[in-house]
Amino acid sequence: MTLVLSNDQVAQLLDIKDVIHTLEEGYRQAAAGQAILGSRADLNTITSHPESVYQLKSMSSVVPSLGVGAVRINSDILSYPTVEGKVRRQKVPLAPGNRWTGLVLLFSTETGEPLMIFPDGVMQRLRVAGTSALGAKYMARSNADTVALIGSGWQAGGQVIAISAIKNIKKFRVYSMTFQNCKVFCETMSPEIEVDMEPFGNVGDAVSRSDIVLCATNSNENVLLNDHVEPGMHISSIRDNEIALAAIRNANVTAMHDTKSMDFGNYESTHGLVIKDQEKEAGNDPRMNYLRSVPTLPDLITKKACGRVSDEQVTCFLNYRGLALQFAVCGALLYKRAKERKIGNALPTEWFTEDVLS
Amino acid sequence: MTLVLSNDQVAQLLDIKDVIHTLEEGYRQAAAGQAILGSRADLNTITSHPESVYQLKSMSSVVPSLGVGAVRINSDILSYPTVEGKVRRQKVPLAPGNRWTGLVLLFSTETGEPLMIFPDGVMQRLRVAGTSALGAKYMARSNADTVALIGSGWQAGGQVIAISAIKNIKKFRVYSMTFQNCKVFCETMSPEIEVDMEPFGNVGDAVSRSDIVLCATNSNENVLLNDHVEPGMHISSIRDNEIALAAIRNANVTAMHDTKSMDFGNYESTHGLVIKDQEKEAGNDPRMNYLRSVPTLPDLITKKACGRVSDEQVTCFLNYRGLALQFAVCGALLYKRAKERKIGNALPTEWFTEDVLS
Repeated sequence: MTLVLSNDQVAQLLDIKDVIHTLEEGYRQAAAGQAILGSRADLNTITSHPESVYQLKSMSSVVPSLGVGAVRINSDILSYPTVEGKVRRQKVPLAPGNRWTGLVLLFSTETGEPLMIFPDGVMQRLRVAGTSALGAKYMARSNADTVALIGSGWQAGGQVIAISAIKNIKKFRVYSMTFQNCKVFCETMSPEIEVDMEPFGNVGDAVSRSDIVLCATNSNENVLLNDHVEPGMHISSIRDNEIALAAIRNANVTAMHDTKSMDFGNYESTHGLVIKDQEKEAGNDPRMNYLRSVPTLPDLITKKACGRVSDEQVTCFLNYRGLALQFAVCGALLYKRAKERKIGNALPTEWFTEDVLS
Repeated sequence: MTLVLSNDQVAQLLDIKDVIHTLEEGYRQAAAGQAILGSRADLNTITSHPESVYQLKSMSSVVPSLGVGAVRINSDILSYPTVEGKVRRQKVPLAPGNRWTGLVLLFSTETGEPLMIFPDGVMQRLRVAGTSALGAKYMARSNADTVALIGSGWQAGGQVIAISAIKNIKKFRVYSMTFQNCKVFCETMSPEIEVDMEPFGNVGDAVSRSDIVLCATNSNENVLLNDHVEPGMHISSIRDNEIALAAIRNANVTAMHDTKSMDFGNYESTHGLVIKDQEKEAGNDPRMNYLRSVPTLPDLITKKACGRVSDEQVTCFLNYRGLALQFAVCGALLYKRAKERKIGNALPTEWFTEDVLS
């Protein structure tokens, strides 16, 4: 049988500690040449919606030791509205019921068969936050206990849970563009994680005297500036432009999630469309050119590169580019648990296999 | 609803004439920058089976005018046995029920939603054969009526049907490695297409005095040699090494299905595995280097390049690399017909979409 899981079932079966541990092990395998970090293709075309782009994104990875390969597919209508003077990328939920389309398909390396299909959203949040937490584990001061969080959306919530899973955090100082959202976020999350959370009206106040700064916004423009950064801080980002280049350059140690993934992938478009993120990846951006040379998270985990060497250093972790490896390793764990606990919709595997050679 | 179709349903809804017409239109769109031919990633790793490789292959394409994007995924255990002194690539059917795993997912460029999921086998055969037929349409002599067919498997059967759909073929001269298979193939297909088919015991006899030579084997080694080729012939191949390089070079006009696809794609492997086909594609093969410069099928269709200019010329069409575009355009037609005729298993689209941002 091929299992079809929902996001709720993914959330029920995986917690952030599992994900962090699983990711760490996956990076070790990939660093040793035993797993494939991932391939990626982004195709952009017009759609009939004005000022919008259709994007079909696919990435894949294989981890033989876990017996799985994974393909993640995103099929999105993207728009780029300007909100309060800043350009934001927005995925428009146009599938029936105002929904988005993101899927992971998990395959067996032993039989080839499709083991499981599940939506990518919950795992995406776990893997992004888990990866940022791993960055902090290898780069932040060991006694860091105060976190500034920039952003109050879905990803920001994930960051709170993940950093709390690996560090003994005593206080969150939160800034987001709309103060009311920020306040509600703190009031909701603080009791959940049993840690004090305070909303701030500007970035500088939130960041000041924090040990770790986690940016988790939808902004396409700088939110953390060089002037905000203080000695000893660990700063971290999940989107290309959140941290100003000056702040990245001034950090004593900067690491990327992965640098190879900046160069791989097929970027194809019709009608002469150019997507900003991809122009950067294609090597036309000084920021990205600078980042090609920095160490990666797998380098830190396998001790090929060092994190900080003193409490005064500033460290910077850029968790920009996702890797299909993350879906493969977390997918393998998810599948194991779903089978054990008999969770998910079981469909006949024959629906997704065939008796003719292709 | 998201439709799940079987190979039988695909065969019921699409015939080769539809496919040839649809492909031709798709190439025109791509040549005009209105559709994406495709991206591709092949990941190869070890599996626990001896002398075998696990391959996770994915390709994608978007055709906005038809409102679709397509992702095709193959998850295969490959082995490379030597049969009668020749190395063959074999996909081992290890999924439950001795089945293979090849899937196409079709998405809407208007809503992002997954419209349909279906196995790739029947469409794969139609698109390979349909593409070879298009090559013959633009390159073979207009009065060609005798076909030599090398091979008697699943793809060879497709070639017979496709070439018969665009040319008035009066005779097939068939060779395959095992004479008995060849004989059975002729006895089975001849009444079906109402054309005379004769089995031959060697390649030279089958090819001699034919107008069109269609190679459709699993061989990794040359089957059609330069000495076999006569003036006026159109020769055609679906696998890298079927036609000897000398025969390709000696042809007056050679065209590839697509040359760009030789260079794109992510080829990643673990454990130092190298797959022969991919080494060639990576630019280490003189044959492939030569072929990078030849015109493509879209060039022929849009008159950017010419086919033959006289009945004495030898033309050569190399239908090596598949393109996801083929699955996108044929998938769009398949979806339209399946909806009209209410065919396929309708699953809730909510199973494959989500209400959280990924």
